[in-house]
Amino acid sequence: MEPDPLEALGVMRNRLDELDAGWVEILAERFRITDRVGAHKREHGLPAQDPTREAAMIGRIRDLATTAGLDPAFAERTLRSILDESVRNTRQILDAPDA
Amino acid sequence: MEPDPLEALGVMRNRLDELDAGWVEILAERFRITDRVGAHKREHGLPAQDPTREAAMIGRIRDLATTAGLDPAFAERTLRSILDESVRNTRQILDAPDA
Repeated sequence: MEPDPLEALGVMRNRLDELDAGWVEILAERFRITDRVGAHKREHGLPAQDPTREAAMIGRIRDLATTAGLDPAFAERTLRSILDESVRNTRQILDAPDA
Repeated sequence: MEPDPLEALGVMRNRLDELDAGWVEILAERFRITDRVGAHKREHGLPAQDPTREAAMIGRIRDLATTAGLDPAFAERTLRSILDESVRNTRQILDAPDA
């Protein structure tokens, strides 16, 4: 028997929901680490920004995306949005008064 | 002995790189599925857009983000960017001539 089209749609949507839960967890952990990186740089007097590292991350994400079949331009935009958010978070840490 | 600050930074950066590889894989699979969803809707004459489903996804992602400790506004912006990209991809499928 042909599967019901709406049921088949539901199966695909369930998988999309699982994947969305996956990237939320990953990004939550990512920002926890960049908060720690910000605090670590502050503690050790390391520069807040590192253009070489940023360029390497962008190049790497485009390569990973191409290999995975994801549009590299979309992957780069997404990473830049994540990095911008990290910088905003780190600025808040750097602007915080010393404990 | 106190660990070298740059070495400790390198360990955190390696974890960030792993996490970036993780979301690239997840988003690549997500767009493969939304491509299939687009083709499936076309095949079965289902509506391309579903505002109820979209609202449910947004609400769910904000809840997941809050639980995970991720800014729900950032999670929502990220999901909307993913959904916009999916719509662009699906339009390309819908505009394609019948095979």
